[in-house]
Amino acid sequence: MTTSSIDQRVSLAVSTVIFALRPHPDTGLMTLWLPLVRRIREPYEGMWALPGGPLEADEDLAASAQHTLERTTGLAPNYLEQLYAFGNVDRSHSDTVGYRSSDRVVSIVYWALVRQDEVARAVDGENVEWFVADDLPPLAFDHAQIVDYALARLRAKITYTPIAHAFLPTEFTLADLRAVHEAVLRTTLDPANFRRQALATKTLVPTGTCLQGTSHRPPALFRFEAGAPTPAPEEQR
Amino acid sequence: MTTSSIDQRVSLAVSTVIFALRPHPDTGLMTLWLPLVRRIREPYEGMWALPGGPLEADEDLAASAQHTLERTTGLAPNYLEQLYAFGNVDRSHSDTVGYRSSDRVVSIVYWALVRQDEVARAVDGENVEWFVADDLPPLAFDHAQIVDYALARLRAKITYTPIAHAFLPTEFTLADLRAVHEAVLRTTLDPANFRRQALATKTLVPTGTCLQGTSHRPPALFRFEAGAPTPAPEEQR
Repeated sequence: MTTSSIDQRVSLAVSTVIFALRPHPDTGLMTLWLPLVRRIREPYEGMWALPGGPLEADEDLAASAQHTLERTTGLAPNYLEQLYAFGNVDRSHSDTVGYRSSDRVVSIVYWALVRQDEVARAVDGENVEWFVADDLPPLAFDHAQIVDYALARLRAKITYTPIAHAFLPTEFTLADLRAVHEAVLRTTLDPANFRRQALATKTLVPTGTCLQGTSHRPPALFRFEAGAPTPAPEEQR
Repeated sequence: MTTSSIDQRVSLAVSTVIFALRPHPDTGLMTLWLPLVRRIREPYEGMWALPGGPLEADEDLAASAQHTLERTTGLAPNYLEQLYAFGNVDRSHSDTVGYRSSDRVVSIVYWALVRQDEVARAVDGENVEWFVADDLPPLAFDHAQIVDYALARLRAKITYTPIAHAFLPTEFTLADLRAVHEAVLRTTLDPANFRRQALATKTLVPTGTCLQGTSHRPPALFRFEAGAPTPAPEEQR
C-alpha cells in the first residue's frame, strides 16, 4: 500500500462480448456470431476490436456495457452479465482510444446474449461488422484471448445452467432448445436423449399449448422456470 | 467516450473474501468463517473491513489477492478465484486507505477457500480477527453486501460444481465431503441420498484405499477428478 499505486495510472475500460446465433455463411447451420468494431485510431488502427471504451466517471459498470450494446447493435439488454476483469500488468497497455500509451488498463468485460427474435432487429453501429465467433480476423490488444475465454465459459455454462434461454423467445419447443445447444457446442445431439436430459433438469415448464402450424403432430411449447441464478447486487433490476 | 473519463479519477482496489471451515463457537458444528481487518484510519476507523488494498501499478490482479491472503493468514493460495468487480458510482467513494475521498473506487473482489488441513496453520496478520460468516459485525463501506454476494455464490456453486474440494485435503471420505456441504449450506443431508448424488456426478475417483483407523468397516477414500472448470487466462498457472 505505497504511494506508487496512487501516483501511477491504472485506467479502467469496459468491453462487451455480444453473442448472437445466426446461420453460418457456408454451412447454413446456426452458429455463434459477434460484432466487432474497426478501430479508426492508433494503436491498432484499422484492426478489429471488441466494442467498449473507457469507463465514464459518472457511469455504472453495467450501464457502460448497456450503452456499448446499444451503440453497437441498437438493442436493449436481454441477458447482460459481468464476465471477468482482465488486468494483468503485461496485457496491452493502451487499451482504448483516449488513453496515454503509458497507462496500464484494466478491462472489465461483460457479455450480452441476444435473443433469436431480436437478431433481425439489430442495427449495426458505426464501423461495426458481425463475424463468426470461431473464425475471427486478428484482433487488437488481447481481445482474441478475451473472446476465447467468453466462448469457453459459454460452452461450459450451457451444460450446467439454463443459459440457453437467453437466446430463445419466451416460448420455445424442445427442438428450438436443442438447436441452441447444438449451435453453441458445435455438435449434433440425439433428439431423444436431449429431450430426456432437458426435462430432467426441471427448469422447463410446459405452457400447455403447441406450436401453431400445419404439422400433423405440432410440438409442445415450453418456457423456462422463473427462478434464476443469484444476480450480482449491482445487476439486480 | 469523452475526456471527462480521463480527467476524473476512478481508482482500483483488490479485496479478498477468505472462507474457511471451523467449528461454530456455540454449537460446535462446522461453519463458514472469514477473517476481517480492523481499520486503523479514517474513513470507518475502528470498523471491520475485508482485507485488501489499492492495486499496485506493477502488480497483477491475482497477485494482489494472493499477497492479501498471505498478509492476512500467512497461507499460500489453494483456491483463489476472481469473484466480481464492484464499481457502481453510488458505492462508497473512498474505499481504501490512501485514496482521496473524492475518488470513485472500483473494487475487484477475489475469493479464497482454505483447505481444512491448512486452517490450523493460519497465522493471523496485524489487526486481523476471524468471524462466523453469517454473523458479522457491521462492516465498512459496502463490504457487507460483498460478503452476502460471496456467500450466495458459494452456496449456489457447491450445488453444481465440485467446489467443495477446495476445502478438503487430496483424499477424503464421503462423510468428509458431506460435512463440507452441510457446513456451507447450513443444513443436514441424508447420508444415503448424498452418497448416491455425489457418486452420480462422476467427479469422484475411489483411491482404492480406506481411512486407517479402528473402525470395523473403515470408510473408502476418494479424490476429485483432475479435470477442473476452465480457468480464466490470467489464472492459468
